[in-house]
Amino acid sequence: MRAITRIAVFVLFTVFAFGAAYAQFAKPAEAIKYRKSVMFLISQQIKRMGAVIQGKAAYDQDAFAANADVLAMLATLPWDAMMEPGTDKGDTTLSSAVFDKPAQFKKAAESFETDTARLADTAKGGDLGAVKVQFGKVVQNCKSCHTNFRKK
Amino acid sequence: MRAITRIAVFVLFTVFAFGAAYAQFAKPAEAIKYRKSVMFLISQQIKRMGAVIQGKAAYDQDAFAANADVLAMLATLPWDAMMEPGTDKGDTTLSSAVFDKPAQFKKAAESFETDTARLADTAKGGDLGAVKVQFGKVVQNCKSCHTNFRKK
Repeated sequence: MRAITRIAVFVLFTVFAFGAAYAQFAKPAEAIKYRKSVMFLISQQIKRMGAVIQGKAAYDQDAFAANADVLAMLATLPWDAMMEPGTDKGDTTLSSAVFDKPAQFKKAAESFETDTARLADTAKGGDLGAVKVQFGKVVQNCKSCHTNFRKK
Repeated sequence: MRAITRIAVFVLFTVFAFGAAYAQFAKPAEAIKYRKSVMFLISQQIKRMGAVIQGKAAYDQDAFAANADVLAMLATLPWDAMMEPGTDKGDTTLSSAVFDKPAQFKKAAESFETDTARLADTAKGGDLGAVKVQFGKVVQNCKSCHTNFRKK
């Protein structure tokens, strides 16, 4: 297992183990700000990498792999902030479906973590064709989770 | 060299190599939002770990090490957004000293990356005394850089 995958899996299990405690945020607004910050950074990583995938930016293997590493790490971060009770109210687009279907939400979160970790591994290999396929899977995770767990 | 350090160094060099291009952000406001997001996440990591250091939260070696890994990765992210020309104006606390003393700013950034990567390594060892010493160095970086490069 590559280094980033080991770290991602390590963080994943730690996050889920401690996510249940819901004690990391002083108040709901802090949890909302936390996850918004993470999601904005994720969107920026997706945008940078998407420009390469779409041929709008040059493919630099090292830079792309570094961006994929960052994405894989960011992908482990937002979930406990999203599972903070009551944070589907306020300045947020989080759907209450997160609290109605927690098992489905956790599965979606784990799928995103897994697919971004795989993208980080694939990106190190440098095969742009394989990278495009895996990037497509990552983006499909975004769409699917937003459809189910983001307010319309 | 431990995995996280290797990754941090890899990302560090990539970020600084590409930071010079200043082409990652569509507009100044986006760079400001990007670095604010990173700095908020960094502040949250410092807060969580600081509670343990101060004895206000229990020391769990794995959880602390996971937080230190996240911090080390986040520490590599904000600098290119801070070096985006003109972004000392607007909704920001960035001092124009960043543009007046770019070499000193880069040195401060590298010092923070190095010390957070060391903290991640130290945290894996689990020696809380050593962790406290290294955490102190990390916090000293925060203070020093804010004194020099944040608006008063």
